[in-house]
Amino acid sequence: MQVVVPFADESPKSRLAPALEREERRRLARAMLADVCSTLRAVGREPTILATKPLSASTLDALDGPDVNVIVDDRALTPAVNAVLESVDETVAVVMADLALATPAALETLFETPGEVVVAPGRGGGTNALVVRHPEFRTDYHGASILDHRRKAREIGASLETVDSFRLATDVDEPADLVEGWLHGGGHTRAALEAFGFDLETTGGRVRLVR
Amino acid sequence: MQVVVPFADESPKSRLAPALEREERRRLARAMLADVCSTLRAVGREPTILATKPLSASTLDALDGPDVNVIVDDRALTPAVNAVLESVDETVAVVMADLALATPAALETLFETPGEVVVAPGRGGGTNALVVRHPEFRTDYHGASILDHRRKAREIGASLETVDSFRLATDVDEPADLVEGWLHGGGHTRAALEAFGFDLETTGGRVRLVR
Repeated sequence: MQVVVPFADESPKSRLAPALEREERRRLARAMLADVCSTLRAVGREPTILATKPLSASTLDALDGPDVNVIVDDRALTPAVNAVLESVDETVAVVMADLALATPAALETLFETPGEVVVAPGRGGGTNALVVRHPEFRTDYHGASILDHRRKAREIGASLETVDSFRLATDVDEPADLVEGWLHGGGHTRAALEAFGFDLETTGGRVRLVR
Repeated sequence: MQVVVPFADESPKSRLAPALEREERRRLARAMLADVCSTLRAVGREPTILATKPLSASTLDALDGPDVNVIVDDRALTPAVNAVLESVDETVAVVMADLALATPAALETLFETPGEVVVAPGRGGGTNALVVRHPEFRTDYHGASILDHRRKAREIGASLETVDSFRLATDVDEPADLVEGWLHGGGHTRAALEAFGFDLETTGGRVRLVR
């Protein structure tokens, strides 16, 4: 199985701009990538980072582990992932780089769930993780991708399974997501959020991070 | 096992006010309660509704099934749930009434996970579902309840397990949550959202419901 982790090194996490400065967004994105890569390694999977350009020295530093495989493709997410699906003969898994809450158990469940297409839905109609064991399946990450991926699987007659995981459903994309990284995220992510000076604030509803 | 579903019949879902009128919020709350109750029955569990006052005729109508057990307790969530924990000798499960995405499989996993305290975390530090098999455990739903419930289990020496489920983690409390009910929710919830005139809107990030 080839495990691909798409990562935009240049200006990641623009939707976090209301809460974080540009350099902080880059640092958080690297911390989350480091958590995802070390969790993948903990279950014996070597990640291949699908990057929009060669990884910067700071990102390589943040990864803080053995040399990582990198594929550079400057196209948008959908064509870049589909190029991998077209070129690779074995099973391909696509795991988003901002799944800061991923645990070994959640990723094991993803990889071990049978099905020609296995999807882990994310908030707001997203597809946060995907395992493809059917040669004709292609992704479409625009819009409510979970609906499109289900439809595409049906169209090519591929069996589809859904993994029900809070940890895989929670990507950190918007300010309200930061608290999830704080409460349930990996060590690099939590450390980055602490370094930025955040702390929990109790409200009448959900708690949130403030500084 | 006694399965308790707390429900505020009078003015539920106030945090949805930016998106829904008062009567719509009541109708959606009833639809979600109906979905939760029918999903519980699908796995052979008879819900007991823990209500702040006797259920209204419209709520009983919405439930659209056999007579439901109701406990009336006008106190806040925490003391009302703790009163049940104090008075019941068997295992108690507490399942929130707005878990519109709950499926039989997710609830089975919750009920079958061993542990003296089993928690399903929700967005923003919440505890969306809970199974209590230890006589001394008490809840505290204020603030980051998932942290408090973990701490309390530790303090009384109870074993604690966490259920990792997107479906149980997703309560419908804020306008951004409506899209989850639309995409992944039960039939009553989806029908209510459709009746209100909502539809999917694709954005640069997550899709959302608009009308």
